[in-house]
Amino acid sequence: MDCIFCKIVKKEIPSNIIYEDDKTLAFLDIANDFYGHTLVIPKKHCENLIDCDKRTYNAVMNTVKKISEHYVQNCGFAGVNIINASGKEAEQSVFHLHIHIIPRKKDDGYKIWPVKDKESFDNKKIANKLRIKG
Amino acid sequence: MDCIFCKIVKKEIPSNIIYEDDKTLAFLDIANDFYGHTLVIPKKHCENLIDCDKRTYNAVMNTVKKISEHYVQNCGFAGVNIINASGKEAEQSVFHLHIHIIPRKKDDGYKIWPVKDKESFDNKKIANKLRIKG
Repeated sequence: MDCIFCKIVKKEIPSNIIYEDDKTLAFLDIANDFYGHTLVIPKKHCENLIDCDKRTYNAVMNTVKKISEHYVQNCGFAGVNIINASGKEAEQSVFHLHIHIIPRKKDDGYKIWPVKDKESFDNKKIANKLRIKG
Repeated sequence: MDCIFCKIVKKEIPSNIIYEDDKTLAFLDIANDFYGHTLVIPKKHCENLIDCDKRTYNAVMNTVKKISEHYVQNCGFAGVNIINASGKEAEQSVFHLHIHIIPRKKDDGYKIWPVKDKESFDNKKIANKLRIKG
């Protein structure tokens, strides 16, 4: 399988590693857009949050928390943003599960939250459609 | 404590509930910006991803996965975006941990990913600063 993140896991492609354990790897995104922009991936290939098995997913999310705590507690950041895109239509570009961590500081000038006009959704109706029936 | 999400958990404030279990609650965001914009929160109050205990965090993240799968497998969405803001400087506005799920469809016209010019970071140096030393 020609997956760039699998190659990073196997160290066939170099990366700037932040953290590694038996199930996960964290490294800096090459996008060079946000300072410290980090990706957390499972070593085992899965495509995204939907198809990932629960054990692998939990390992990834625990690494996300570990690194977030490290950035805030040890590296002088004030907070973090976590972003994931699962699925091509959700703007996913590399099809190996990855969680973005963007460490934040006061007045860093970044703007993560998507700004969008309000619409006139009927949330009661939408909830009736989307609800998970116990 | 005057926390709006704690009031939603206690049903003192109504919400359009998508899913509920003993540790977590998911409901539609009142922002009315993205169709199906969902928030997943722990019933136990914590501020964000940093101060949240691991058991509560895992419960929240498992609910995020459960709902994401439900949206894609049962509700006709093609994918999801997951977003979290932890910390005021990370654009967090309600200080009770919440994970956003934005369900996506082909040609929904939404644009979640923050677009930002590249900068000339030295990722090797940054990684040396931020790395978690084993």
